[in-house]
Amino acid sequence: MGIYLDNAATTAQKPASVAEAVAHILQGAYGNPSRGAHGYSLAGFRVAETARKKIKDLFKADHHYEVAFTNNATVALNEVLKGLIQPGDHVITTDWEHNSVLRPLYQLEAQGASFDVVTSEAVTGRLDYEQFTQKIRPETKAVICNHASNVTGNRLDLEWVKDFCDKQGVYLIIDASQTAGVVPIDLSDGKVAAVCFTGHKSLYGPQGTGGVCLQKNLPIEPVITGGDGMQSFSKVQPKELPTLLEAGTLNIPGLAGLAAGIQWVQEQHSEIDLGSYFYQELQKIAGVTIYGDFTSPRVAVFSINIKDAESAVVSELLWEDYQIATRPGYHCAPLMHEALGTADRGTVRLSLSSFTTKAEIDQVLEALQELASR
Amino acid sequence: MGIYLDNAATTAQKPASVAEAVAHILQGAYGNPSRGAHGYSLAGFRVAETARKKIKDLFKADHHYEVAFTNNATVALNEVLKGLIQPGDHVITTDWEHNSVLRPLYQLEAQGASFDVVTSEAVTGRLDYEQFTQKIRPETKAVICNHASNVTGNRLDLEWVKDFCDKQGVYLIIDASQTAGVVPIDLSDGKVAAVCFTGHKSLYGPQGTGGVCLQKNLPIEPVITGGDGMQSFSKVQPKELPTLLEAGTLNIPGLAGLAAGIQWVQEQHSEIDLGSYFYQELQKIAGVTIYGDFTSPRVAVFSINIKDAESAVVSELLWEDYQIATRPGYHCAPLMHEALGTADRGTVRLSLSSFTTKAEIDQVLEALQELASR
Repeated sequence: MGIYLDNAATTAQKPASVAEAVAHILQGAYGNPSRGAHGYSLAGFRVAETARKKIKDLFKADHHYEVAFTNNATVALNEVLKGLIQPGDHVITTDWEHNSVLRPLYQLEAQGASFDVVTSEAVTGRLDYEQFTQKIRPETKAVICNHASNVTGNRLDLEWVKDFCDKQGVYLIIDASQTAGVVPIDLSDGKVAAVCFTGHKSLYGPQGTGGVCLQKNLPIEPVITGGDGMQSFSKVQPKELPTLLEAGTLNIPGLAGLAAGIQWVQEQHSEIDLGSYFYQELQKIAGVTIYGDFTSPRVAVFSINIKDAESAVVSELLWEDYQIATRPGYHCAPLMHEALGTADRGTVRLSLSSFTTKAEIDQVLEALQELASR
Repeated sequence: MGIYLDNAATTAQKPASVAEAVAHILQGAYGNPSRGAHGYSLAGFRVAETARKKIKDLFKADHHYEVAFTNNATVALNEVLKGLIQPGDHVITTDWEHNSVLRPLYQLEAQGASFDVVTSEAVTGRLDYEQFTQKIRPETKAVICNHASNVTGNRLDLEWVKDFCDKQGVYLIIDASQTAGVVPIDLSDGKVAAVCFTGHKSLYGPQGTGGVCLQKNLPIEPVITGGDGMQSFSKVQPKELPTLLEAGTLNIPGLAGLAAGIQWVQEQHSEIDLGSYFYQELQKIAGVTIYGDFTSPRVAVFSINIKDAESAVVSELLWEDYQIATRPGYHCAPLMHEALGTADRGTVRLSLSSFTTKAEIDQVLEALQELASR
């Protein structure tokens, strides 16, 4: 169909094993897990447990952590933020955040919580880490940070933030939507309270999967409640994880696909090197402004503008004239664009996956060169 | 593997077209809908819109209604109940409800709302409709009813409840988890405010699908908020449906499967007649207590007990000795068991699907006969 460079939204191309794993479930006879002791139910249960173990292994999570599945990272972030933050609590976040973090925070603010935003530099989007220290308060309960910006591809200095939160005694919540599967996440030091992830981006699983890997003792009240198949007479959701955050029926075929995706990721090399090549060549094109920090580790997400053109116009030309799929606009991260200085026109985002080839990147560079010369 | 009679939990057997539709998406190149104007994104968008149209057609929903997808009926019920009911509001519900309704109501009660429960007769589980009139109050905002009990298979007299709510001017919310696809639901009179449904039961779609078909003008505040791909600078979730209730990425492969499932359902006959046969023969087995009302229209869900045995013991024997998968216990519907008189031991639930055969039913009857003779 063309060249797909919108992998930060979803990896449209999946390993063949993912479709096979999902179809296998739907062609088989897999019941609703934990809702009956018959073999069909146990078969469904085992699929969920396999995916759970894959996530725990991926994040080097020990027995202090549990994995709860949701249908996407957004629900996971809502469950953790709204489940943890009470009126009167204070939160520190960054201007890198996606609306899946910002909108829950605005809702919590309306209910009496408060939050402060650590901001970034123009153009590079480099985070000013000193502001964490300036913004901490006695009532600060949590820090929520994007592990990598979905606009610039900049990566958080996770070690720095972990140490900060550890010293201050506040919960650290990580949005790993852009990193899980492509950047190692190691929970073995116990300094991260919760990692929210999506299954359908760099874990190459199906859409409809995601979740949170969180410390078992986090004082979380569930947002969504319902059946758990076990403690029917309890008026409240059972406190045990994952049941606490898994009301209703899980996406078992999706989780089979997610497990296959993670398996595939663990057997691959990452696309980071092709990203470096892309950046190196991109710099040579006159008229292209590249946003982001290229002096630190990053993910293969690139935001650009060409001369003074609207991002929507450039993105449309790339699709219509070259069949190159990119994403224009604000990428659900309004504060990032205020920081970058692109709140007027957004950016054209090009995001790579493991399926992106050098030949495709060369075609993209050629197209950008042509557009910049117009 | 055996005989699967736990279809009220999930239809483990799906039409072949469902797996094919899901695999087709995962093998293709489908982007994130509404998050870019490139072809991959539009292809994803079209999958969601096809499923949306199928649901609207199924429920004869006109332009006053919209469909929002969630990952299961539980999330849909949470979104509608918690989005609509404010502190001070009153709700009428029934003892047929699943914990996906009761637990949200207990949470709302803790926040200052209140609710009353219309109760049922012992053994038959027949609802006492007069109580609706007795329990209505000036502050009653909504009535939430299970369209069919997942314990007894009894069907709600939806026309009666529709007229009641219409006359009283209160919102009617229907939990169609056990009925969508097997009992016609007609929204064309505009008397139902919202129908919450699951995709993975009698619509034969994959787990990980569900949603709500609701009136566009319902005053709902979203529970889950996040990115919408369009109005990035808005601090609140956009008010337009379905965006209001669809924060984050949709389960596009799942929705392709759901559309295929609905298509299949619309081309099939229902399993109701086999259910009548099962009931007719079941009555002949001495020592079997059958719960439910068999004088009114129903769905093919049967709750029984054998002599004074624990439901868990009977269900385990059915699986271990006969490879018949049933479900014992309370089926996440505690108040139903209090009404039926089975709060001490639950019931053995046997639920049919379109894949259930007469030969299977005969084997099940034989097994029950043997167990009852022990």
